Amino acid sequence: MAAARFTGSRVGESVWSTWEPENGRFELDWLEPVLDGAHERGIAVVLGTPTYAVPPWLSRQCPEIAAEHATGQRIGWGARQEVDFSHPAFRFHAERVTRAILGRYAGHEAVIGFQVDNEPGLRLPHNHGVFQRFVDHLRAVYGDVETLNREWGLVYWSHRLSTWADLWTPDGNAQPQYDVAWRAFLARQTTEFVAWQADIVREHARPEQFVTTCIAYGHPALADDELTDSLDVTAGNPYYDMQDGLELPDPTGGREHQWLSTGVWALVRSADRIFSSRQEPFLVTETNAQAISSPWDNRPGYDGQWRQAAWALVARGARMIEYWHWHTLHFGTETFWGGVLPHSGRPGRVYAEIARLGAEFDTAGALVAGIRPDADIAMVYSAPSKWLMQKYPPLGKPDGGPDPAAYDRIFDSFYRGAFDAGRQVRIYHARQLGEIPPDLAARRHPVLIAAGLYLADDAMLDWLVTYAAAGGHLVLATHRLRRSRGTVPLESRLAEAAGAWYDEFSNLAADLPVRAAPGSPLKAPADATATRWVDGLTVDGAEVLAEYDHPHFGRWPAATTHRHEAGRITCVGTVPGPGLARALAAWLAPEPVSGWWERPESVTVMTGTGTDGRRVHVVHNWSWQPVQAQAPTSLTDVLDGSWVPSGAVVRLGAWDVRIFVAT
Amino acid sequence: MAAARFTGSRVGESVWSTWEPENGRFELDWLEPVLDGAHERGIAVVLGTPTYAVPPWLSRQCPEIAAEHATGQRIGWGARQEVDFSHPAFRFHAERVTRAILGRYAGHEAVIGFQVDNEPGLRLPHNHGVFQRFVDHLRAVYGDVETLNREWGLVYWSHRLSTWADLWTPDGNAQPQYDVAWRAFLARQTTEFVAWQADIVREHARPEQFVTTCIAYGHPALADDELTDSLDVTAGNPYYDMQDGLELPDPTGGREHQWLSTGVWALVRSADRIFSSRQEPFLVTETNAQAISSPWDNRPGYDGQWRQAAWALVARGARMIEYWHWHTLHFGTETFWGGVLPHSGRPGRVYAEIARLGAEFDTAGALVAGIRPDADIAMVYSAPSKWLMQKYPPLGKPDGGPDPAAYDRIFDSFYRGAFDAGRQVRIYHARQLGEIPPDLAARRHPVLIAAGLYLADDAMLDWLVTYAAAGGHLVLATHRLRRSRGTVPLESRLAEAAGAWYDEFSNLAADLPVRAAPGSPLKAPADATATRWVDGLTVDGAEVLAEYDHPHFGRWPAATTHRHEAGRITCVGTVPGPGLARALAAWLAPEPVSGWWERPESVTVMTGTGTDGRRVHVVHNWSWQPVQAQAPTSLTDVLDGSWVPSGAVVRLGAWDVRIFVAT
Amino acid sequence: MAAARFTGSRVGESVWSTWEPENGRFELDWLEPVLDGAHERGIAVVLGTPTYAVPPWLSRQCPEIAAEHATGQRIGWGARQEVDFSHPAFRFHAERVTRAILGRYAGHEAVIGFQVDNEPGLRLPHNHGVFQRFVDHLRAVYGDVETLNREWGLVYWSHRLSTWADLWTPDGNAQPQYDVAWRAFLARQTTEFVAWQADIVREHARPEQFVTTCIAYGHPALADDELTDSLDVTAGNPYYDMQDGLELPDPTGGREHQWLSTGVWALVRSADRIFSSRQEPFLVTETNAQAISSPWDNRPGYDGQWRQAAWALVARGARMIEYWHWHTLHFGTETFWGGVLPHSGRPGRVYAEIARLGAEFDTAGALVAGIRPDADIAMVYSAPSKWLMQKYPPLGKPDGGPDPAAYDRIFDSFYRGAFDAGRQVRIYHARQLGEIPPDLAARRHPVLIAAGLYLADDAMLDWLVTYAAAGGHLVLATHRLRRSRGTVPLESRLAEAAGAWYDEFSNLAADLPVRAAPGSPLKAPADATATRWVDGLTVDGAEVLAEYDHPHFGRWPAATTHRHEAGRITCVGTVPGPGLARALAAWLAPEPVSGWWERPESVTVMTGTGTDGRRVHVVHNWSWQPVQAQAPTSLTDVLDGSWVPSGAVVRLGAWDVRIFVAT
Repeated sequence: MAAARFTGSRVGESVWSTWEPENGRFELDWLEPVLDGAHERGIAVVLGTPTYAVPPWLSRQCPEIAAEHATGQRIGWGARQEVDFSHPAFRFHAERVTRAILGRYAGHEAVIGFQVDNEPGLRLPHNHGVFQRFVDHLRAVYGDVETLNREWGLVYWSHRLSTWADLWTPDGNAQPQYDVAWRAFLARQTTEFVAWQADIVREHARPEQFVTTCIAYGHPALADDELTDSLDVTAGNPYYDMQDGLELPDPTGGREHQWLSTGVWALVRSADRIFSSRQEPFLVTETNAQAISSPWDNRPGYDGQWRQAAWALVARGARMIEYWHWHTLHFGTETFWGGVLPHSGRPGRVYAEIARLGAEFDTAGALVAGIRPDADIAMVYSAPSKWLMQKYPPLGKPDGGPDPAAYDRIFDSFYRGAFDAGRQVRIYHARQLGEIPPDLAARRHPVLIAAGLYLADDAMLDWLVTYAAAGGHLVLATHRLRRSRGTVPLESRLAEAAGAWYDEFSNLAADLPVRAAPGSPLKAPADATATRWVDGLTVDGAEVLAEYDHPHFGRWPAATTHRHEAGRITCVGTVPGPGLARALAAWLAPEPVSGWWERPESVTVMTGTGTDGRRVHVVHNWSWQPVQAQAPTSLTDVLDGSWVPSGAVVRLGAWDVRIFVAT
Repeated sequence: MAAARFTGSRVGESVWSTWEPENGRFELDWLEPVLDGAHERGIAVVLGTPTYAVPPWLSRQCPEIAAEHATGQRIGWGARQEVDFSHPAFRFHAERVTRAILGRYAGHEAVIGFQVDNEPGLRLPHNHGVFQRFVDHLRAVYGDVETLNREWGLVYWSHRLSTWADLWTPDGNAQPQYDVAWRAFLARQTTEFVAWQADIVREHARPEQFVTTCIAYGHPALADDELTDSLDVTAGNPYYDMQDGLELPDPTGGREHQWLSTGVWALVRSADRIFSSRQEPFLVTETNAQAISSPWDNRPGYDGQWRQAAWALVARGARMIEYWHWHTLHFGTETFWGGVLPHSGRPGRVYAEIARLGAEFDTAGALVAGIRPDADIAMVYSAPSKWLMQKYPPLGKPDGGPDPAAYDRIFDSFYRGAFDAGRQVRIYHARQLGEIPPDLAARRHPVLIAAGLYLADDAMLDWLVTYAAAGGHLVLATHRLRRSRGTVPLESRLAEAAGAWYDEFSNLAADLPVRAAPGSPLKAPADATATRWVDGLTVDGAEVLAEYDHPHFGRWPAATTHRHEAGRITCVGTVPGPGLARALAAWLAPEPVSGWWERPESVTVMTGTGTDGRRVHVVHNWSWQPVQAQAPTSLTDVLDGSWVPSGAVVRLGAWDVRIFVAT
Repeated sequence: MAAARFTGSRVGESVWSTWEPENGRFELDWLEPVLDGAHERGIAVVLGTPTYAVPPWLSRQCPEIAAEHATGQRIGWGARQEVDFSHPAFRFHAERVTRAILGRYAGHEAVIGFQVDNEPGLRLPHNHGVFQRFVDHLRAVYGDVETLNREWGLVYWSHRLSTWADLWTPDGNAQPQYDVAWRAFLARQTTEFVAWQADIVREHARPEQFVTTCIAYGHPALADDELTDSLDVTAGNPYYDMQDGLELPDPTGGREHQWLSTGVWALVRSADRIFSSRQEPFLVTETNAQAISSPWDNRPGYDGQWRQAAWALVARGARMIEYWHWHTLHFGTETFWGGVLPHSGRPGRVYAEIARLGAEFDTAGALVAGIRPDADIAMVYSAPSKWLMQKYPPLGKPDGGPDPAAYDRIFDSFYRGAFDAGRQVRIYHARQLGEIPPDLAARRHPVLIAAGLYLADDAMLDWLVTYAAAGGHLVLATHRLRRSRGTVPLESRLAEAAGAWYDEFSNLAADLPVRAAPGSPLKAPADATATRWVDGLTVDGAEVLAEYDHPHFGRWPAATTHRHEAGRITCVGTVPGPGLARALAAWLAPEPVSGWWERPESVTVMTGTGTDGRRVHVVHNWSWQPVQAQAPTSLTDVLDGSWVPSGAVVRLGAWDVRIFVAT
């Protein structure tokens, strides 16, 4: 590890049964030589608490802590994260083992910080206690059942409650208002659990030690922005498809973004999502070493791809890159989750690739300590909208069934459009936007896309209009005007500001061609398409940007734009296909912050500002073909020190990346 | 509503928790202003009983009424129709609320009739009481277990009962004889429940008020002909794909017919199925307003399609068209089940389209009060055969798995063949045919297709042969000669009358080309195909109509025909592809009742007789392309009064329909 | 039956409720006339015990014997094989009925042998008793939990046991070490049950009567080689796709081999698997009569295909061909599992085809009494490796999910390559190889392929190296060097002998082109491909046979070969596509035992030695097209007595087979 310039490691998060082999009997000594050895070699350690993996004796003695995937249906034991972490019996044992470990090791000089639990929020526990607290929570929020009946519209299908005890369990529920409240409550349980454990850890930690947990962003019971409130730094686990999954141009369009992203745009989006949790640089606690995932899906990268991915993450704000994991296991579920070392334990190609990266990080020094990435476009992310669309998606699959990834598909069509156009994106949670004065937001981010923002309260809608009034360019897309919350007056006001509204909508069985409207500033390419959804936009003062080519849908514009006081509101009535999304991004942000690099399609440029204020350009070639690009400004190569005058050619090899600072 | 010429509405069927917010506390006043307001505006009201949606307090107080989808596995509460409606505890509460509502409102002058429950038969409840009554029912039918052992063939796989208590529950059952008896018993529970509730309602109703329930024809526990015995009129809920789903020619072939039909032929089939329940005109209680179905499947029609669908339903016997529903909800599962009014509540395109139709109905007047549709061809429908084929289908899917829609695929291939040939169909339940003297049937319907009639007792087979002997042309297709019931003698007699029989059969992995036999009167097109199934028809006197082009299957004819006394029996040995099915229909009914319209493929003609005896021609153009057709007879346009001489051109716009009476 | 020259039949295995209609009341007389009648007609009888189909009264009185598909989740009753056959209550009743039947009929002169139970091992019962015995078994094997913790690597994910009671039930288990131990234990339950029942039967049997059971080779709880230890002869039930499923060349590549094989190569593989159980000729207790399988999948053969399949099975060692079943049932799950007689009960085409075969067997006489099939290549089969790969497969499906048939896919790619090259295969269970001295094995089988041999202990690996050292040509393919068992030293030794090793591996999203290396003796065709998997083979002394054409994977050879003492070890780094697999087989066994027949692609030649020492050539034409081939040696046609001089033309009709002995 030292030879490969590893400077950090993570230990201890999966071995409760090693720390505490029997109820109340602790064995704590085994870690000491590990920490000592790390410290001697200059490797800092993040110490994990083991609570995500309860030992067999606890499962045997307290079977009631087993999480239930439906009321009364316990999840079998034998993997990990099978418990209802809100159960008091679990909390008792979790606190005891945490204090035992922290009491022993928090003071060790190798330990720079702590990870509490691991990838929390994997499950949606339907346990009795969880449900009863949910009812109490509703009682606290709504006061009486008549208010809940009215707010949730429970007259529908005869669901009016006569008393709180009437509330049905979530298993059979079909009501969206219930569903989204239940999902938000479950996410809050995760947040509360992590905060509870972080507080325990802090009682033992030194002031300079940080507390975090590692986040799998696709987990269902997770509100990452709320979760990280109680932490000192965000830590995320972005995994991604290697090999041809990183090729550009990307012919696949990517697959469903769960814990594994496909496509360069999706890798970058992963980083931007992690950045968004706290709007600051972050740690990568896990990412691809040799092979990831299930035994049937091993695809270790081509030479160069590890550097590429790591530098892309750094360019978007990563302050640390940790690999999962050091050596490949010889047993267990993750026997084929390949580590830096293969099964043989002998350094091989992957080790060499990562050692190469280690040397580069060493050379680059402080630059890796937290780049603040640039953004041409801001986008709003809404976890509640995603939760709702998982059960009630507006988009279907080709077979006619629901598409539970609908929220991501809508969001990603705009994200990827920006990426394809060479524009960089900053992602904000809706809650975070509300905390920024709209005029400040308009100055910081001249363009803000709200796509698939299905659940938004009056205050949020108000904020959006004010942002536009203050000079921002607000883009509303898909479902922004839905009257499902009964907020017609406010939404009407939003419609007025947009100069457009709709009453009708339709799914699309096939993509529709889209063309720029006569005189439109939009440069729609010949292959511009509308996909999957059409809002029947009715122009009421707005200018038409783009039109559908269809005898029926052609009556409505595909996109409109309208000046609103100092700013502008653009409405997009569909999920834009790649060509249309790219054209929209290019029009929305006409001058990319990265400057005008001359580059082939396989080359990307990511820019940002280092902690020392230097401007950084990270330039990738995502292909087998060596290429050259032309820099718009004078640059110095961080790794070899060479100087590139403005307008000079930058050469990149196959699957190459170069890191420059502006000079 | 009044402005759009609505003359009827339906209320009250989903709001038990509003009628009875707590056990025994009734709130009945709220409906009065609604009924008064309707009456003032000339809008008649069908009053529904709310029993399909039990309130939360009842679910809480009587959890034992929850329906079980498998023995002991309760369906979660939170949607509707979750209960075992045969449970006495449910019956007690259902009767009390029904009497409370009826006692209060049956006498209101706005109320013209009643709907009991709503779309009954959604589930197959496996509850203890249901199963125990099933055992009692078998005991009553078979007397002793030895008889059952023999009749069901329970020697097979060691299933002989020693006593009634030995009967296994349906969950693990693998025996077809058991399965079809169980399904028939469950359908009978639905029938009995509706009759029970209709009787209660009639105790309160005025003589001129009708009682009905609305039927979803795809429900699994439903025998619609038996169910409607206890009702005064049939009411059905045909939903259909709009937009390109109504295009002709139809390239898709339609998808599985569940609650949503695809294709014009399938829309018409829906109407013919509703007509068949009581062999008389009917009410449409629900059909597409703006958008139907799940959040991910909104496809509101093109301009004109609402008129088209409504007039098609009227042409096939509808006396009323009600839309589900008036305004789109802002909450609940059906938030995207778009009503006549959109979420905004403001009349929009859909309202305008339906108002246009309202005006047309107003102009057409009595014509809409019950057209008796014409038929070129009669077809037998067998719910028991369908039930059996859901678990033991004779057809597979491309992936090799069972095709639970096999019955419909067989039936529909002939139905659609008739439709494509411009022939109209009357559908009879097997039970209904048995009640018509065969010679009368032969006079009324010169052609009768029995396709997929897998379950038929000796009396039915006898009836079919007698029908042919009396001059009818009987068409037997797919499974008609199966010896699975041990009725070899009778079936042999059927074989003798047909001049053909088979012992062998095969599924087809790919379609086979079919050609007319030398000298055959059948005009088989070049693309005629056999699909999915081949009976090894052996000619024993019959004439060969069509042949397979295949080295193995070519040994058997694809279709035969044979004179039988005054009539004829034709055997079709396969599921005919569209071209072959169309050719068969054209040959079977050489002179369409509608007369010889000259028309492009996108134009259909539906004919029938109004209550006043006038002959009606309803002519549709199911396409974007304006077209013209040529009438075979002199007609008057019902809506604009214009006169079309015989042989003159009739023009139709895009997605247009014109209604004529013969003059 | 007599007219069709049937000489054997099988009775009694499915009718416990007929033998014992009530608990303890036996009715045994009914079979006597059947046995008498068979004996009078010269038809020998195999008498089955009925224990696989428990009667309803037993299910009612002892519900605790129901098998559980997961802990506490009982399988519903209503088919057969629903019980935990290890439960003492089941054993009590099973023994009593077995003794009653055997006591009555074992002495009947028609009875030549017995079948105990029927296709055992269908389920994986998770019952309490089974699990508790599993824990006891582990305790006996490992002694203490610390040993188990270490051997299974239970430190992983905090799974260390503190006491035996900590062991979790298999339902939630995610650990491969646990899974494979559990699967092996369940297979052993089946073995033990069959041995227990065979012992009971033998107490009643005459010495010359044999005991067997019929085996469905795809069943999950089955180790066929261990199971047949307690039997006198192997009996298997090979079912196969008829019609185009038997065509050669086979464009499909076959489908997943469960109980139904697709492709001629897979039919032959079925026979070779049955032969492998005891390495001796065998009985076919069931195979296709008219139609097999589910109601939706009837595909009775083309004329000639029954002869073809039967003679192929005989050529590969079958001593008896029994059809399932005599006549087609009129009730029950298998109503469409067509027998020799169709539903009508009248002899038809299938009867005629089988009668034709009966006459041929009569003519061929002793030749059918047990041919010992030839082999060019031996292959190792490993049930434990298959079990492990069912839950943790190394191969994925196109949709990204796991491919539970991965083991068969790997094994079959080599098997089919041999078949396509006209080479014949002998299959050995890994356990059987260990019992043959390696030098003897090297003399008997100059080529041995170990493909997908994932689980192999040190002794097995040692045996393989010694086999090569003794002069054998060992082929290692896919996963042979995995370090998952911690056996690095031994495996390293294997690597040394092979002159190659690997540390890296990758799944393939798409096939890779493969070409012969410069100077390689391999004749790789232009369409040679690598599929689904690549080992990163590193040459350490070996010669490169074949290479990938890919910028990344091309760094590793696709296959290497290396002299090792008197023999050779070849490593194949991928799952070879058909072209590559065929070329490998042709290179491995340059001189086919069958000799050099000149033959078109649709013709196969199977060879072996009869019990009388005669050399047999069975020549098939698997196509509609009559063909001719050229014999490499002088032959006599067994059926018509004609003589074919060496080099003369042999004519075959459509779907024909001819049987020759060398002269």
